Amino acid sequence: MALQPDNTPSQPSRVPDVVIDRLPQYVRILHALMDSGVEVVSSHQLGRRLQVTPAQIRKDLSYLGRFGKQGRGYDVRYLASELKQILGLNRRWNVCLIGVGRLGRAILSYPGFAPEGFEIVAAFDTDDRVVGATLGELKVQPMDELGETVERLNISIGVIAVPSSVAQEVMKLLTECGVEAILNYAPVYPHVPERVRVRNVDPVLSLQSMTYYLSHRNNHG
Amino acid sequence: MALQPDNTPSQPSRVPDVVIDRLPQYVRILHALMDSGVEVVSSHQLGRRLQVTPAQIRKDLSYLGRFGKQGRGYDVRYLASELKQILGLNRRWNVCLIGVGRLGRAILSYPGFAPEGFEIVAAFDTDDRVVGATLGELKVQPMDELGETVERLNISIGVIAVPSSVAQEVMKLLTECGVEAILNYAPVYPHVPERVRVRNVDPVLSLQSMTYYLSHRNNHG
Repeated sequence: MALQPDNTPSQPSRVPDVVIDRLPQYVRILHALMDSGVEVVSSHQLGRRLQVTPAQIRKDLSYLGRFGKQGRGYDVRYLASELKQILGLNRRWNVCLIGVGRLGRAILSYPGFAPEGFEIVAAFDTDDRVVGATLGELKVQPMDELGETVERLNISIGVIAVPSSVAQEVMKLLTECGVEAILNYAPVYPHVPERVRVRNVDPVLSLQSMTYYLSHRNNHG
Repeated sequence: MALQPDNTPSQPSRVPDVVIDRLPQYVRILHALMDSGVEVVSSHQLGRRLQVTPAQIRKDLSYLGRFGKQGRGYDVRYLASELKQILGLNRRWNVCLIGVGRLGRAILSYPGFAPEGFEIVAAFDTDDRVVGATLGELKVQPMDELGETVERLNISIGVIAVPSSVAQEVMKLLTECGVEAILNYAPVYPHVPERVRVRNVDPVLSLQSMTYYLSHRNNHG
């Protein structure tokens, strides 16, 4: 029996980042299919939903293991369950929020995080005037309590909702406390150590990635 | 002189989507470097900011043309200017918003769109109770005025901020009006024709793409 080095899940660190980035979308689509009573899905159907080619779907999944047989499609429930386990989505993750201005308060009241296992368990601000205020069930803490709180509450993820001018400093404080995953709402790209993952929530970047296609298709305007 | 088929900008449609997705981030980083007085940047420096390898940076840019010489780095101002032109960011784009609930109103008041050339010029809602209301400088229109307004105002981009249950229907209406770029805030993946580009703004997906790395590094928790 020949070795199949490209088709084994034993080396998860070899999965390309772009594939990892797509996997949560697979999970969401698979759940929607389950809700619709669909039991088997083809790479063509998945590709259409994700706007990538069927070949890309098959390649993505081949990094993670064997999920289907040629021509048979994927078992929706099994694939969803396996991907959730690979992504670490079968557990709860504690999150802290830095910055409780207008944006931060909108994030706190966003109903989508908790049902997916992301619980904002602490909120911080640099502004003494809002420290001590109660927002929902959280009391806004001063930044100098960050390290102790991250450790005590086992916080793995930080959400940054501070102005651009202080985002770099806040990111530094978070990483010094051992936080290695950061969701950044500030429209800047701060320096972080290589072990730290940052995802930027930025609708402008999303718009800017579509104008390329508009520019190369339309001549009006 | 040999042909160099992989190094010419004459076939823009061949640029992989993942590269196009990254280019707006290049532009933002290059502008930040310009603001800091930096004139030349290496692929290593760009890669560190973008969390991709220097080799990936060189490969990304090779799809678009020749922007630097081996060992010399890239001219920050020239690269930014070229990328903006390729992405179609040197002009204004008219945008319509569908859905003026809490999320839609937050989008309308978001200060980041207009300075980057994205102008929300019309707002629509399916709910008769909010149609006719004035939000900022816009009057909320009924959905049956969508087609005429898209044509009259030369709207290229639609922003969807309606509940998941009606997102598919709204996406269909938009694409029927000729809108081919959609920024979708509803946590669903609607079907769209292949010519239409959709970008989903979804912080949960961003969080879910980081837990993979946390799961495969940490054993605590």
